[in-house]
Amino acid sequence: MKHLITTAGLDAAEIGNLLDVADHMAEINSRPVPKVPALRGRTVASVFFEDSTRTRLSFETAAKRLSADTMTFSASTSSLNKGESLRDTIETLSAMGVDAFVVRHKSSGVPEAVTQWTDAVVINAGDGWHQHPTQALLDAFTVTRSFGDGNTMQGRHIAIVGDIKHSRVARSCMDVFVKLGARVTAVAPSTLLPAGGLPGGVAVAHGIDDVVGECDVLYMLRMQRERMDSALVPELGEYSARFGLDPARAARLPAHSLVMHPGPMNRGVEMLVDPSHLPGSRILAQVANGVSVRMAVLFSLLGGAAAGLERGDS
Amino acid sequence: MKHLITTAGLDAAEIGNLLDVADHMAEINSRPVPKVPALRGRTVASVFFEDSTRTRLSFETAAKRLSADTMTFSASTSSLNKGESLRDTIETLSAMGVDAFVVRHKSSGVPEAVTQWTDAVVINAGDGWHQHPTQALLDAFTVTRSFGDGNTMQGRHIAIVGDIKHSRVARSCMDVFVKLGARVTAVAPSTLLPAGGLPGGVAVAHGIDDVVGECDVLYMLRMQRERMDSALVPELGEYSARFGLDPARAARLPAHSLVMHPGPMNRGVEMLVDPSHLPGSRILAQVANGVSVRMAVLFSLLGGAAAGLERGDS
Amino acid sequence: MKHLITTAGLDAAEIGNLLDVADHMAEINSRPVPKVPALRGRTVASVFFEDSTRTRLSFETAAKRLSADTMTFSASTSSLNKGESLRDTIETLSAMGVDAFVVRHKSSGVPEAVTQWTDAVVINAGDGWHQHPTQALLDAFTVTRSFGDGNTMQGRHIAIVGDIKHSRVARSCMDVFVKLGARVTAVAPSTLLPAGGLPGGVAVAHGIDDVVGECDVLYMLRMQRERMDSALVPELGEYSARFGLDPARAARLPAHSLVMHPGPMNRGVEMLVDPSHLPGSRILAQVANGVSVRMAVLFSLLGGAAAGLERGDS
Repeated sequence: MKHLITTAGLDAAEIGNLLDVADHMAEINSRPVPKVPALRGRTVASVFFEDSTRTRLSFETAAKRLSADTMTFSASTSSLNKGESLRDTIETLSAMGVDAFVVRHKSSGVPEAVTQWTDAVVINAGDGWHQHPTQALLDAFTVTRSFGDGNTMQGRHIAIVGDIKHSRVARSCMDVFVKLGARVTAVAPSTLLPAGGLPGGVAVAHGIDDVVGECDVLYMLRMQRERMDSALVPELGEYSARFGLDPARAARLPAHSLVMHPGPMNRGVEMLVDPSHLPGSRILAQVANGVSVRMAVLFSLLGGAAAGLERGDS
Repeated sequence: MKHLITTAGLDAAEIGNLLDVADHMAEINSRPVPKVPALRGRTVASVFFEDSTRTRLSFETAAKRLSADTMTFSASTSSLNKGESLRDTIETLSAMGVDAFVVRHKSSGVPEAVTQWTDAVVINAGDGWHQHPTQALLDAFTVTRSFGDGNTMQGRHIAIVGDIKHSRVARSCMDVFVKLGARVTAVAPSTLLPAGGLPGGVAVAHGIDDVVGECDVLYMLRMQRERMDSALVPELGEYSARFGLDPARAARLPAHSLVMHPGPMNRGVEMLVDPSHLPGSRILAQVANGVSVRMAVLFSLLGGAAAGLERGDS
Repeated sequence: MKHLITTAGLDAAEIGNLLDVADHMAEINSRPVPKVPALRGRTVASVFFEDSTRTRLSFETAAKRLSADTMTFSASTSSLNKGESLRDTIETLSAMGVDAFVVRHKSSGVPEAVTQWTDAVVINAGDGWHQHPTQALLDAFTVTRSFGDGNTMQGRHIAIVGDIKHSRVARSCMDVFVKLGARVTAVAPSTLLPAGGLPGGVAVAHGIDDVVGECDVLYMLRMQRERMDSALVPELGEYSARFGLDPARAARLPAHSLVMHPGPMNRGVEMLVDPSHLPGSRILAQVANGVSVRMAVLFSLLGGAAAGLERGDS
């Protein structure tokens, strides 16, 4: 694996390997000094053409804990405003000595294109409706470690609720969860299901009540603001009524069930309950695991030496 | 002391301890390599909902000199724009492994609220009209070290001139200065004095001429632009005439007197003299001391090991 | 040399010395861990009043590879918006302990003025139409190292094509190239030549076709957008036709010739050919060399110890 653009090229064994490395990173993160010299002298550039402070800070925290230097390139203040092409930007940063690009863009396919313009490693941090592979990996890490299931999701039922059609998170998660053996149900109104159908093995339900009583994981998607105003979601109150998680539904979840959300949450839209009141909420664990999983991805792709993980005194 | 939200909870002994630690930090800052490993692997997040480049850079410089990693979260580019709540933001950053939050907000009470949402240390970097505790500490450090008075302000007369009512700097400074034994006079038009009265022991004067001949410290406040246009300051020229520091008044200051200002200065409004022409100006010393005092606060709250201050080779 | 404001004060020997130091830095940049402790504990502040992500990141990468801490001050989010003077800003940052200021400003002379307000080192990163000295140094480094000519440009013919009049890059480059012995031709319409004439020894041509067949280096300038709309460039298509580099002209370049551009390129204006198809293109080498040359400038001005360049384990 040279880049991480999509989960499609990863098989269950490769996913399992990354999750094992992430275990190691989580152990580092639990140390009094959570910092190792593994990637000292390497430069990780965040190239974000779409704002996402949370994802950017997660990657940058991961890079710093491995002692890499970080560089932030945000489209809004860049020479792209002067008419420079995206390719020129990547080639320029690459020539400065960037070792890894973390790329987010509103158009599908941009991170893949970036791989043509640089010898550096490219990590997709979300592209259009297409993929968000580190989100899927951190979610698989969260589910498997919460249940103590090793690297398998065999026998687990994951219900993903919300705007499946436009969600790169859903697309990446369905792929990874199915590969790890989970039973997955997509819960959405038919207007928010992908026109091309769902991956093999993914079932469909048209209301959260169909799954809430028996799923192992209730994975709530964010309802994008821009979608709320569209013809696809004609009545937000009706959406919340059929697809939102409220206290009554939360009470029907099996005792061992997890509640997850990729954030940021829309309280009052899909989240009608305070997650801090849900014993099964893993929403903040997802954030913490995100740092460990992104450390694992950076370390694996940049070929850090295992010795660099041992010492705490970079 | 777990957090630093207000000076109210600090007694003279605790203030003195922080100033002693700041002495140690000032010594570090005078070294050829002003950097120690005390907080290596710790993450300090600046969460600024109100722009203040100067205060943010002071805290970040302090953090870096202690070898902490820094993270900047600015409200304008964040997912708060996507409707995420402040609480969700803090919980998310906290889950990424932030050890200390440095928070500035235009509303009083926000830093206090943040302490409810995280196990990390919270430092108030200015909230509304309420408090700016590190400013008061650095000012106390500046006064006591300038006079060689140890940790006391006993026998010193400090005149604070300007918009006392809306100034968190004035509020924090009056509290700390009085606790350390200073005699304090608030110099302001009655429209710019707090409706609820002044702390015990603080006198009032209604013109800078009443104090300029006999104070040990003339502390000039910034006249906020937004205040200038209001009914509270009907005539800016009249304000400058009664409360501005001009060359004639500067000439009347006792020879040993200090002139201070928290910055940024409004030249031509409250400052009608170039401070670089005033032998008693400590305005740039305040900035330099700000880094030392913020190092002391970060080090004390994050429980850095004393050994980490000794070596210069982090 | 205390500051680097203009190339005017540098003679050929001093330029040669900097290029020699840059050779050392290029060697460091080729190491597996391209990082040395030479400037540990020093703080380099980028103070950019005019956006230039590419130049800022180049300087910050250079500083980080020497283990300096970096601080970014951008005018758009600063207290300059609150009416603070530029001088107050510099004095404030200086008091925080900045060791070097890297300054870009749209007005000529600002970096020079900054030297009056601080004891720190000041490096001009571009001021108005005046100077961009590190660009000229990195270009001289690129030319001499590409040809294996040591520190001389003797016997080389450099054609600089475009808006000579408004270009600080052209001004700095002409000065350095002539000092190192090059024969320089300025290729521009007469409206885009400086009113005050060209430096001694610089020839003039009024079309790219006059030089393309026999120059050693074809140095293309960026056509600024703001100029395109002005009376100086009445017809962009005509400009491209006479001054643009297209495939036919590229084919006429001598086999050993270099093509250079300071970036960002205007594809379709001055660059009508994809530089990745030109064997002589050194455009990305310029970017890579920019980091080495800026490391050399920071190291030389900040008086780093030579020992600090040896160890790879800061």
